[in-house]
Amino acid sequence: MYGADCDEDTVKKAKARGLVDDAATVADSFLPESDIVVIALYPKQVEGELARIAHLLKKGAIVTDVAGIKSHFSEKIRSLLPEGVDFVCAHPMAGREKKGIDYADDGVFRGANFIVTPSADNKAESVERIEALAREMGFKNVMRLTPEEHDKIISFVSQLPHAIAVALVNSDDRQFDTPRFVGDSYRDLTRIANINEKLWSELFLGNRDNLLSSIHEFEKYLDVIKTALEKGDKQALEDEFVRATKRRTEFNKEL
Amino acid sequence: MYGADCDEDTVKKAKARGLVDDAATVADSFLPESDIVVIALYPKQVEGELARIAHLLKKGAIVTDVAGIKSHFSEKIRSLLPEGVDFVCAHPMAGREKKGIDYADDGVFRGANFIVTPSADNKAESVERIEALAREMGFKNVMRLTPEEHDKIISFVSQLPHAIAVALVNSDDRQFDTPRFVGDSYRDLTRIANINEKLWSELFLGNRDNLLSSIHEFEKYLDVIKTALEKGDKQALEDEFVRATKRRTEFNKEL
Repeated sequence: MYGADCDEDTVKKAKARGLVDDAATVADSFLPESDIVVIALYPKQVEGELARIAHLLKKGAIVTDVAGIKSHFSEKIRSLLPEGVDFVCAHPMAGREKKGIDYADDGVFRGANFIVTPSADNKAESVERIEALAREMGFKNVMRLTPEEHDKIISFVSQLPHAIAVALVNSDDRQFDTPRFVGDSYRDLTRIANINEKLWSELFLGNRDNLLSSIHEFEKYLDVIKTALEKGDKQALEDEFVRATKRRTEFNKEL
Repeated sequence: MYGADCDEDTVKKAKARGLVDDAATVADSFLPESDIVVIALYPKQVEGELARIAHLLKKGAIVTDVAGIKSHFSEKIRSLLPEGVDFVCAHPMAGREKKGIDYADDGVFRGANFIVTPSADNKAESVERIEALAREMGFKNVMRLTPEEHDKIISFVSQLPHAIAVALVNSDDRQFDTPRFVGDSYRDLTRIANINEKLWSELFLGNRDNLLSSIHEFEKYLDVIKTALEKGDKQALEDEFVRATKRRTEFNKEL
């Protein structure tokens, strides 16, 4: 297994720690002998990198990515690839709030979800190979979606929670020394407010319409709570709480 | 240590498991010999219960409560007490999303916050005794606030996160099988959507003005994100993310 990272320090650490057989600041020399190539770059960089490395890829190789949005890849992305190379779009739904090799931990994959968004021209065995790899890494649910389905569900389960966490932390008027007063609830809700601003602004803008509609939907239900509060309507509050509890409990069963 | 619970099954379990020296469905017989009495009822029930048991309390006893809101207690609450009995208002900020003795776990107190809202007529040694008890139980930050300060900060660090979690779960259009797609972020943000509707509707309505103002403040910052998305303003998004990350990181240092 080979690794490439633009940061020299990362390359050194990866080698010193035995995380890879070899590593370099560019992947070029490794590509002609690689069966599977994982492009772990920001969404917008994937297409350019694919164009740059296309001529180095081995015939029969499978290229995959890890981008958190999927509809933005243009149709032409596959035309960049040489004959016999397959590009299988994937989103490993795992990560942490810290970046860099020092926080690398294969434990984050265990029990996590992995989404593949295959295209009509993908070979069945390429998709299956990537799915098998995900399972080997410990991912639990390995699922296929269209890029459009992926981006819709992701706007709700991942991007909306991040938007909420950021807004919650920023809305603190800091009249008190907040950290001294928080319980688990605030801590849990804001953990992901620790966010890579370059990556996430790209993810948000690359999925703008879905995310805006998820935010609107969320606000509608927050309004139900607000209205109940304004009216002093205990029953309406209880109804919302019962519905949420029921859903969240079903949810635990499924997981 | 004695325990009282209106549910007979709970009384039996508490005794069988050796959690208490004795237990009953009413506390009355234990009160004349109790030095510290903890009333663990819904906020609105505390005053009535205190009036009911007042004549049974031992001279020199300290009564405390665990209610999550504090400004709602009327001034007359202390006039209900017999001479020589002190009522020290407290809020142990610990709990779980399941209720009942089967989920009892003293581990929830460890490292948690404990707020006391003393009144001018509390004896210093009564307040100190309750604070010492909190520390013995494993609470980490034991703090004093006025009831008004308590309710303001609680509306932000506890009630707002619960309102958000409920709205987030309820806003799911369930077009997809959500649980199969969630990552840690959604799971963390919605855990507290599993909520006791009777208790929390009372807590919300008992702190209505503070909670409404916390929700409004939160919405203002969610609007900043929405506007940035609508305008495609990457810089504005990055600014919000950087601010949130900075705050959340400071926050980790303090904890």
